Amino acid sequence: MRRTVRAAVGEFLGSAGLAAVVVGSGIAAQRLSPTDVGLQLFENAFATALGLAVLILVLAGVSGAHFNPVVTLVDIALHRRHWSTAAIYLPAQVVGCIAGAILANVMFAVPAVAWSATDRSAWPLLLAEVVATAGLIVVIFALVRTGRSQLAGPVVGAYIGAAYFFTSSTSFANPAVTIGRMFTDTFAGIAPGSVLPFVAAQFVGAALGFMVVLILFPLSTNEAAAA
Amino acid sequence: MRRTVRAAVGEFLGSAGLAAVVVGSGIAAQRLSPTDVGLQLFENAFATALGLAVLILVLAGVSGAHFNPVVTLVDIALHRRHWSTAAIYLPAQVVGCIAGAILANVMFAVPAVAWSATDRSAWPLLLAEVVATAGLIVVIFALVRTGRSQLAGPVVGAYIGAAYFFTSSTSFANPAVTIGRMFTDTFAGIAPGSVLPFVAAQFVGAALGFMVVLILFPLSTNEAAAA
Amino acid sequence: MRRTVRAAVGEFLGSAGLAAVVVGSGIAAQRLSPTDVGLQLFENAFATALGLAVLILVLAGVSGAHFNPVVTLVDIALHRRHWSTAAIYLPAQVVGCIAGAILANVMFAVPAVAWSATDRSAWPLLLAEVVATAGLIVVIFALVRTGRSQLAGPVVGAYIGAAYFFTSSTSFANPAVTIGRMFTDTFAGIAPGSVLPFVAAQFVGAALGFMVVLILFPLSTNEAAAA
Amino acid sequence: MRRTVRAAVGEFLGSAGLAAVVVGSGIAAQRLSPTDVGLQLFENAFATALGLAVLILVLAGVSGAHFNPVVTLVDIALHRRHWSTAAIYLPAQVVGCIAGAILANVMFAVPAVAWSATDRSAWPLLLAEVVATAGLIVVIFALVRTGRSQLAGPVVGAYIGAAYFFTSSTSFANPAVTIGRMFTDTFAGIAPGSVLPFVAAQFVGAALGFMVVLILFPLSTNEAAAA
Repeated sequence: MRRTVRAAVGEFLGSAGLAAVVVGSGIAAQRLSPTDVGLQLFENAFATALGLAVLILVLAGVSGAHFNPVVTLVDIALHRRHWSTAAIYLPAQVVGCIAGAILANVMFAVPAVAWSATDRSAWPLLLAEVVATAGLIVVIFALVRTGRSQLAGPVVGAYIGAAYFFTSSTSFANPAVTIGRMFTDTFAGIAPGSVLPFVAAQFVGAALGFMVVLILFPLSTNEAAAA
Repeated sequence: MRRTVRAAVGEFLGSAGLAAVVVGSGIAAQRLSPTDVGLQLFENAFATALGLAVLILVLAGVSGAHFNPVVTLVDIALHRRHWSTAAIYLPAQVVGCIAGAILANVMFAVPAVAWSATDRSAWPLLLAEVVATAGLIVVIFALVRTGRSQLAGPVVGAYIGAAYFFTSSTSFANPAVTIGRMFTDTFAGIAPGSVLPFVAAQFVGAALGFMVVLILFPLSTNEAAAA
Repeated sequence: MRRTVRAAVGEFLGSAGLAAVVVGSGIAAQRLSPTDVGLQLFENAFATALGLAVLILVLAGVSGAHFNPVVTLVDIALHRRHWSTAAIYLPAQVVGCIAGAILANVMFAVPAVAWSATDRSAWPLLLAEVVATAGLIVVIFALVRTGRSQLAGPVVGAYIGAAYFFTSSTSFANPAVTIGRMFTDTFAGIAPGSVLPFVAAQFVGAALGFMVVLILFPLSTNEAAAA
Repeated sequence: MRRTVRAAVGEFLGSAGLAAVVVGSGIAAQRLSPTDVGLQLFENAFATALGLAVLILVLAGVSGAHFNPVVTLVDIALHRRHWSTAAIYLPAQVVGCIAGAILANVMFAVPAVAWSATDRSAWPLLLAEVVATAGLIVVIFALVRTGRSQLAGPVVGAYIGAAYFFTSSTSFANPAVTIGRMFTDTFAGIAPGSVLPFVAAQFVGAALGFMVVLILFPLSTNEAAAA
């Protein structure tokens, strides 16, 4: 199989895995810890931090393990990939996240597709998505530009685990996952009407994070070595 | 002592340790956190993730630290071990898991052997076992085929810690552990009547994972280096 | 941009991030887990341990990732930086922590600035701050003086995660964070009247830690190599 | 200061730190999470796993970071240290653990010294201490004899974090810590009358672990290299 196809399969499977972890652990937490929402989020964050770290470690060599359109776009903007990558990665990510959410629904015997009724449109949540996504971009590309991308798995997992709690939006920080979460009316869901503002906030955050990366990490290790 | 015998002892002790961690922490969680099943599972997942990581790190050099028949079989199918390995490893794994479950029962002063009454036969749980086992196989052999098997301990521990929550079956993903869990009528138990379907689902998942490994990691690092 | 300016920006952003993690996860925990203060602290400690580890890993190469005046001062006292560093780092740290606390307030839709009403003046808490800060200094400079500062992220994160629970003060251990926490009347807040004794205790702890470092790690790896 | 004195100081401080973490986080957990003993143990295990990992990483180069008489004795039995080490390390460990327990008591404003009233004499707990201590010895010396002792911090921390839950005794696994825990009538305490059987069980476990090490790891890496 050609390397490009493998990368697309990797992005699809990784995005599906990520959405299944987020949605599935949310359903388990909600069902098993019915009296304390904080404990539900804690269980959700624990599973997501570990699961995301594993997915990145497993698929880094296959596709770069983005699972996230804004990560792919920043990677392109930093001249690390060609624009054509977006045409392959973004659909794989979005379709993967939808598939993963549906898989979680089916595993937990809730309707395979049910639009979430969870409104997440309050403006402080949008600010939180800006912050969460900016932070994610800085974390990832700080590692990339200092030659430590092999640490991305545990570090990104830890970042998201923390961000579930330190942001009021529980840190989606990923347009593909946000779209996938529409498809489940459970703990991790988001009402379709809240998706567009969330995604917009994530793009603003990504742009902000991109600027911070340029300021704090002006030359990548390779460029510095070549300079 | 001959290397093969040491490997069998390693698989036996590691499988016993794994089952003791799973069953023992389940009993402790059920006894000490009686009002919230999610918290019980969280404590169980915390202990299992850490304990499994440690067991793999300790025994990797002795036996490869499989503790799991489907891992051994996939290892053989990938031409990394001879078929005769199965004749030694599988019995050691099954007997080890039974011994570990009994040890946990005795440590916690419940009957040494008591058939579990926990029915786990609903079909979504079987789907979950397929997913959990496929994921486990992909995680392990992704590391193996990219020359990073020294990371297997923390990565597999993290995977199982997440899978306790993101699958509806709490991710047994291991026929030997499944058999061992029959022997305890506590949190982690499984009724004997549910064992065969669980094991069948795990074999399906392992086959699925094996195919994903072949697709995403077509050449192992060594083979690539030799090519 | 000049390296010094980048370092100042790094200290500002890192300190802001740290305060946002501490304050933000405290608000989330208090709001979502209203019936158990221990669970609130557990969620707060989980988020802080992970978030602090990430911040240090990301910014270590930019500014050294101090985010803490006593760390900067001990670094200077050990002749690793010039005294002029303090004039840049300390203001960046204090202003950063205030900004981070305000950001957390705004993300969670509580008043942007509200003086904390949480009295923390009991003397056992001050003893705890001495212990917590001494321990922090020993942990950081043990790594530095044995050539393992690349481990500082996870190790300092783990230390603070533990110290949230093993000290009665929940281990602020940082004068800049202490000042920032004045600005929020939520879980992680500290009444302005308790700040000065806390900071004084932290300086005593830092001095104590500095002495332990000199005793246990008399020569840095570099000095030993040169000797 | 002579290297031997530094090592004694290291063992004293590390043992004090370990006992302070165990006892202190136990008091915090008991006080802040009054309604769920499992949650108390979870908080205690979280803090202990992280704190122990940090202490070992910090002090490994100073004293070997034993903090535990049975670890020192097995180290001697494996010809890695001279018997005279025991005369220095064991008193430092015991006095350190007592000092750490008292420090925790004082930080949390409970009586500086109060004999624990927690009876832990049931025989299944003694079996659990045999298992816990045997496992600890195997974990540590598996790493030592395969040239990976630099991993001892996180691995031993993870082991103890798991063992708090998978053993019925909550895994003391350390005679010095056991003695120190007599001095606090709080969550982590042990009644003086239960100490001797616990310590005896730990010695049995250490002997058992020592035998497993000889069987599974017959040659240390160095010996193998020299062979």
